[in-house]
Amino acid sequence: MSDPAPVSTDTAAGLLATARALDAADPLRAHLDAFLEAPGVQAYLDGNSLGRPLAVLPERLAAFVREDWGTRLIRSWDEQWMALPERLGDRIAEVTLGAAAGQTIVADSTSVLLYKLIRAGAAAAAAGDPARTRIVIEEGNFPTDRFIAAGVADELGMELAWVRPDPVRGVTVDDLAPELSDRTALVVLSHVDYRSGALADMAAITARVHDAGALMLWDLCHSVGSVPVQLDACGADLAVGCTYKYLNGGPGSPAFAYVRHDLQPQIRQPIQGWWSAADIFAMGPQYAPTPGIRQLLSGTPPVTSMLAMQAMLDLIAEAGIDAVRAKSVSLTDFAVRAADELLAPLGVRLLSPRDSALRGGHITIGHPDFQAVTQRLWGEGVIPDFRFPDGIRLGLSPLSTSHEETLRGVVAVRDTLVDGS
Amino acid sequence: MSDPAPVSTDTAAGLLATARALDAADPLRAHLDAFLEAPGVQAYLDGNSLGRPLAVLPERLAAFVREDWGTRLIRSWDEQWMALPERLGDRIAEVTLGAAAGQTIVADSTSVLLYKLIRAGAAAAAAGDPARTRIVIEEGNFPTDRFIAAGVADELGMELAWVRPDPVRGVTVDDLAPELSDRTALVVLSHVDYRSGALADMAAITARVHDAGALMLWDLCHSVGSVPVQLDACGADLAVGCTYKYLNGGPGSPAFAYVRHDLQPQIRQPIQGWWSAADIFAMGPQYAPTPGIRQLLSGTPPVTSMLAMQAMLDLIAEAGIDAVRAKSVSLTDFAVRAADELLAPLGVRLLSPRDSALRGGHITIGHPDFQAVTQRLWGEGVIPDFRFPDGIRLGLSPLSTSHEETLRGVVAVRDTLVDGS
Repeated sequence: MSDPAPVSTDTAAGLLATARALDAADPLRAHLDAFLEAPGVQAYLDGNSLGRPLAVLPERLAAFVREDWGTRLIRSWDEQWMALPERLGDRIAEVTLGAAAGQTIVADSTSVLLYKLIRAGAAAAAAGDPARTRIVIEEGNFPTDRFIAAGVADELGMELAWVRPDPVRGVTVDDLAPELSDRTALVVLSHVDYRSGALADMAAITARVHDAGALMLWDLCHSVGSVPVQLDACGADLAVGCTYKYLNGGPGSPAFAYVRHDLQPQIRQPIQGWWSAADIFAMGPQYAPTPGIRQLLSGTPPVTSMLAMQAMLDLIAEAGIDAVRAKSVSLTDFAVRAADELLAPLGVRLLSPRDSALRGGHITIGHPDFQAVTQRLWGEGVIPDFRFPDGIRLGLSPLSTSHEETLRGVVAVRDTLVDGS
Repeated sequence: MSDPAPVSTDTAAGLLATARALDAADPLRAHLDAFLEAPGVQAYLDGNSLGRPLAVLPERLAAFVREDWGTRLIRSWDEQWMALPERLGDRIAEVTLGAAAGQTIVADSTSVLLYKLIRAGAAAAAAGDPARTRIVIEEGNFPTDRFIAAGVADELGMELAWVRPDPVRGVTVDDLAPELSDRTALVVLSHVDYRSGALADMAAITARVHDAGALMLWDLCHSVGSVPVQLDACGADLAVGCTYKYLNGGPGSPAFAYVRHDLQPQIRQPIQGWWSAADIFAMGPQYAPTPGIRQLLSGTPPVTSMLAMQAMLDLIAEAGIDAVRAKSVSLTDFAVRAADELLAPLGVRLLSPRDSALRGGHITIGHPDFQAVTQRLWGEGVIPDFRFPDGIRLGLSPLSTSHEETLRGVVAVRDTLVDGS
């Protein structure tokens, strides 16, 4: 692979001393112990793909089976589970989204909720003005957002308009403005870019979309739980996000959707299952949607998959989302510094914004050998994420990741690149 | 409520002796111990709403968190979880559905999968012949089936045609035939009626629908795991079912969908998320669906919610679905007999077929006081299901329910009716 790089022992030792000093000064360091130990794992740098389980979780899940499902049985639906999608949505909203109660619900998957909200949002905009037939989407957005939007556009006889921002800087108001017009129905963007980690200016972009008379849908998958979000203050119309990344909900835990309170009466989602009906147990001949955010439900909520995130939300609430963000910035700043000192000499490029104000909770670095490097790292218990064509994504989940663990990951990338040369 | 009934001590003692004799002769009685004890529960007669957890499950879930999610972390997606929707679908197909591999997948909820399959099925039929614009549905079908079908008909510019069978006997070929024509696109029926337990003749109905040139979608929610199903032999086109009833998957565990192998190339589902893409990690600009049954996926599969059913499928496989059905028939026959002897004198009506060949795994009985009766029973740990307007549904999950437990439930219904008078 590359030539061995002239990294001095002093550089590595200096970084290690810095990492330890940062960890010692970290006001959230006690929370590192809240997570289950992972035997054999040297550095877990993929918490933005799948967050680690909390240490309380094995016993909590076992107790749920024994005492709740196993003993209360069907009675638990009346006693607590019926309300869970809304109660948990409100909790996510309160702890991470800057959103008042009654606007957020947990259900389905991100893809299914994107389908519901893109359909409903685009249709609501077109109902106000039939000339609004364009859904604006970003070229580098996560595939499911683009694929779902394309499918909805086909269904509704609408068309897609594409924004093509700089892939490192991410989408700005200036990128978006030329695509906005009185033909725009809905704009769908990610708050934090899944590759570069670029952080979009939610307030400014939402305001500009509203100036054009269109609705704004934010995908919060890579921000919720690491970057503070202010949906209400920004006037966002619609949002979705996932719970298995920084909310540590476990593999395939359900997603959440937000619909601004005064927009809810204009929204009609397409999958009108019994859980969205006005009277769920009337089982009458005609469907009538329930008012409010529960109209976004379709089938029976996935209760078991909704348990893990509850403990993590408590932990984030205890830490405070602003402190979580401060730790996140410290981690990504340190990762950039370590990459500059240890990896740049090997030809590794930074594919994320340098300015932490423009960045979410992960960074991406690039090198032609990174697919092979990632494969070897995984075998050694150093676990970042690989993204085509040549990116390694370092996801630094703030509450479960230390600066020293981050450094172990970067050092392992260096060693693997050097060893492979 | 009602006048105290002249039930002799002999009658009750005779039923108890019969129940114990039937339990002693039950070849599956050892499996009763496979389920978690439920402290304070005298009779659980709602296993067709929410099956009970297996005793191995608390430790199995805890081990999943510790060893799989917590230790393998993101690597588990590659190592095992990616394949789980299809692997588990094949397992359900093999153990309960009479379906070859590659046609069944676990995902989403029943409502979301109904939406996907009704949309895809109706569109496929209309693609073959644009005059096929009718979706035939049954008046007494479960609400989500009717609501979703109505929504899809609106979306596709189609219309609903209604079958109105006798509510106790359930739908027959004769009921259906007048609604079938060269205008029919798709027929959506339940295999076992959620109220009466009436069992539809899958082979005869599917054949008649095919004679009319239409596609047939079976809702298997109330049959899978208790009534043997022969999807392949019947030539069924599409099917959905749920896993939290007789497959004991836990509250809100995901559903499954079946698409006949040679129909799969004609099917295109509407929620084209990244998990349905031909190359999930290519993340390219254009969506292309993967061939085969995985095209029905949308978002990240709910792994945690897919664990519980695996142990139950092993148990059903060990018992054999035909033996499970034989036990089920014995339980419902005995429940009918007990209701005849203990409840009919109090004015309770049987709202299910008397002939076990026409019946699934539950029976429903009716009385004007049953809403209040159910409320009191639940407080005493006797747990049937109430269905508007005046039905008590006795769901007798074959592997977790004994004849004696069934009798305890019927006796408690009698005592509560008599006490309340």
